Parts: sequence; C-alpha cells; structure tokens
Amino acid sequence: MDVENKYFKNISSRERAIFEGAITMGALFHQFIGTPVSIKNADSLEKTIEGTMELQPCIKNVEVHINRDMLNDLISEYDYTSLTGDMLDVRVLAEYKGKKAVIRLEYVKDLKYPLMYVENVD
Amino acid sequence: MDVENKYFKNISSRERAIFEGAITMGALFHQFIGTPVSIKNADSLEKTIEGTMELQPCIKNVEVHINRDMLNDLISEYDYTSLTGDMLDVRVLAEYKGKKAVIRLEYVKDLKYPLMYVENVD
Amino acid sequence: MDVENKYFKNISSRERAIFEGAITMGALFHQFIGTPVSIKNADSLEKTIEGTMELQPCIKNVEVHINRDMLNDLISEYDYTSLTGDMLDVRVLAEYKGKKAVIRLEYVKDLKYPLMYVENVD
Amino acid sequence: MDVENKYFKNISSRERAIFEGAITMGALFHQFIGTPVSIKNADSLEKTIEGTMELQPCIKNVEVHINRDMLNDLISEYDYTSLTGDMLDVRVLAEYKGKKAVIRLEYVKDLKYPLMYVENVD
Repeated sequence: MDVENKYFKNISSRERAIFEGAITMGALFHQFIGTPVSIKNADSLEKTIEGTMELQPCIKNVEVHINRDMLNDLISEYDYTSLTGDMLDVRVLAEYKGKKAVIRLEYVKDLKYPLMYVENVD
Repeated sequence: MDVENKYFKNISSRERAIFEGAITMGALFHQFIGTPVSIKNADSLEKTIEGTMELQPCIKNVEVHINRDMLNDLISEYDYTSLTGDMLDVRVLAEYKGKKAVIRLEYVKDLKYPLMYVENVD
Repeated sequence: MDVENKYFKNISSRERAIFEGAITMGALFHQFIGTPVSIKNADSLEKTIEGTMELQPCIKNVEVHINRDMLNDLISEYDYTSLTGDMLDVRVLAEYKGKKAVIRLEYVKDLKYPLMYVENVD
Repeated sequence: MDVENKYFKNISSRERAIFEGAITMGALFHQFIGTPVSIKNADSLEKTIEGTMELQPCIKNVEVHINRDMLNDLISEYDYTSLTGDMLDVRVLAEYKGKKAVIRLEYVKDLKYPLMYVENVD
C-alpha cells in the first residue's frame, strides 16, 4: 500500500516532521510518567526511553534528561520515586524527506507546566 | 509570560493546530492502552478518555470509538480485556487562531499498525 | 480449565483476597498516573478509574478520591495538571470465598510516599 | 516513623511478601503495556523493566521475558509494535523477614488472559 500517498499528501514535509515529532513527545510523556526511578537507575531509564521512542516513524534521535536535583528532592524513604513530567527535559528529532524538526519538552516554572514546543524546524 | 511569542512564533497557525493535535493523539494512545475494558464499561471509558484529552492546549473536541467487535473477540474468561491500540478509532480536533486540524487514529490492517494521520486541515 | 485448583491452591482465601487487591492497587496507580485532570473532570475521572478497576478478578468495590486541595495547588496555566500518586486516596475491596481484604493507598508525608497497605482483612 | 508497626502488623510476613509482589506485578503490567518494542530493543526493554520494578519495597528480583515469537508475529510495517500483556512472562521475587513469594505472570491461552498467580511461597 502506498501509505504516503493515501494518508499524508495533504501536509508538507516540514509539517510531517512536526507531526511525527509531536506524536512521539506526547507518547513518551504518557508512557513513562509514573515509572519507578532512583538516582541509581536514572541513566538506564533515560537510555531505554530514548531507544523505545526512536522506533516510531520518522524519529531520528531522542535525548532524555531526568533532572537529578528534582529527583533528589522527591526521593522517598524507599530510595526511589515516580517519574514526573516536571523532571523531564527531552528533545525529539524527527525528519521527513530531508526536513527536520526538533520538538522540545521543558518544564516552565512560570506556567507550572511541562511545555512541549518546536525548538527548531527547517 | 508571553508564551506564544516566546515559544511558538517559528510555526504557522496551521502547523500549531497539527502540532497540538498530534501531541494529544500520542498522549491518548500511551496513557490509556492497557486499561481494563469490558462491553459494559466501554461507553464510559470512551467518554472519560475524551474528557481528559480535551483538557490539553488547543484541543476542541475528541471522539473515541472502541471497536466492539474486536473487544468481543478479545474478552477473556474474566469478562474483560486490556485496551489495545487496534481497537481504537479516534478523531482529535485541534484549533489555533481559527486554523483547524483533525488528527485521526485508525487501525490499518495492511500495515498491522494503528496509524495516526492528519485527516483534515485548514 | 479448573484455574482455581491449578493455580491458586497454594494460598488461603484470605491470602487470595490480599493478592488480588494488591494487584489492582498497583495496576490502578501505574495505569492512571499522568492522566490530564482538572477540577471540572476530577469527578468523572474518579468514577472511570473505579469502574475499570472493578473489572479485575475478585474486586468488589473501588473508591477513588483525588485530593482537590493538592489538585488546586498543582493546576497549571492551562487549567489542568497530570494526575500524581500524591493526590490519590484509594480503597480497593477484594473478596474471595467470603474472605475480604481492603487495600488502601494513601500519601504519607513523613515517607514522601504514596503508601499501599492492608487496611482491613478478615 | 515506625511504618511496619503502624501499617503492617495485621498481616504475616508471608502475606507481606505476597502483597508486595502482587503490587509490583500489577504495576509492571500497567506501566509498560503500550511501550514501543522491536526485536532489536526487546533485550534492553526487559532489563529496564526489571531494574525499575526492583526498586519497589521488598522486591529482590524481577525476571521479564518478552515472547519473541509473538513479538515477531505482531511486528508492523514500521518494524515495531506495542508491548502487550500476552507477550510477557514475568517472575517477581518478593521477600519480607525471610519469607519469600514468587509471583508469576503468564499468558494462559485457555483463559485468553495474562494470569497472575503465586508460583511459590514459603
């Protein structure tokens, strides 16, 4: 089946890159929020989130950073906590036919909100 | 803070609608996959998914349909199953400054894949 | 198939009630953390969580309370936030062959932890 | 705070091991179902699931196996799929004061259900 022609001819390559990057950012947030995380396993969790999300269509690279200061503040008596959106700083690079878009997730204190936006786009 | 000017001036209103709709579709899928669902509660689950996802920025309407035939096929001896992406048919309407985009999630058999695409855009 | 005899004859009815209630509490937490929630939809989200979790084996009743004060504190500029474990107060009633167990989830400040414990058991 | 005395004196050590193991099994299932998974990243996903779940109270060991045959059958045109409960075979070892319980998750075809049960208990 010619998926591209059937489903995607109504948007430009630039829009496609934005679209696929945005899906992946929404997916990443809602898949992994709540996961048990500690200082010890934060590294490996970052890498697995990156690896799973890079499987999605048009995704060329994912960089996940879990804020260690926030993590430290939230660690419970049981030496771990649940991953929250506030701890996450993420960049997703999506590319379609040479057009690239970098989608960013960043906690914005003034908004009390983990904001997703297009950081860079061709 | 002028969020719009600080974070979103590099994309058009049409692109913004696509962007926000796509985030919400990725979020919806990965938040709710795995939820216990039965013939009896499918209605109420559909409505709650719609209501929670309509909270996200620029989202004007969400329509969720859980495929009752697939659901019936998958029901276990315990009279329920876990929500899968294959059962979902979803439309998300996003709007920014009068520009609308309808993002669709539909299971495409030939791809063995719950495809997300832009069904309509201004 | 005689499931009970094949898989569950090594534990007592009281243990079975504890077991099933505990599974459901772990499931509830990790399924719904991250869901968008606002003052307006908190009621309906509580009911849907209850309804989906009551589908699981041996679960007779689920009561979910989202702490409205915490919710209010966390609401972002976009008028909603993501559900966290700290906001949740939950009771799950499991029953097997007349033996009942009430599993409780409650945020315990001294532990910085949403603690799950057996509140009552026959 | 004496958590053990305040919250857990109404159950035996054996029951506590069952309780904590069951919570972790419910958590594992509902946290990770839906995660993108391919032949290539299945190994690393298994390890991360194990590592995150071993953070929970009383959990000594977690073994996760993703069924590669089922995974192969479900792989989409995009070379990955979403993790489902049917693909999972998991053992969680919980221990409290020397009493051990092994909780198992195994897909049981006759039930069309990923069954959780106590495989071994002291």
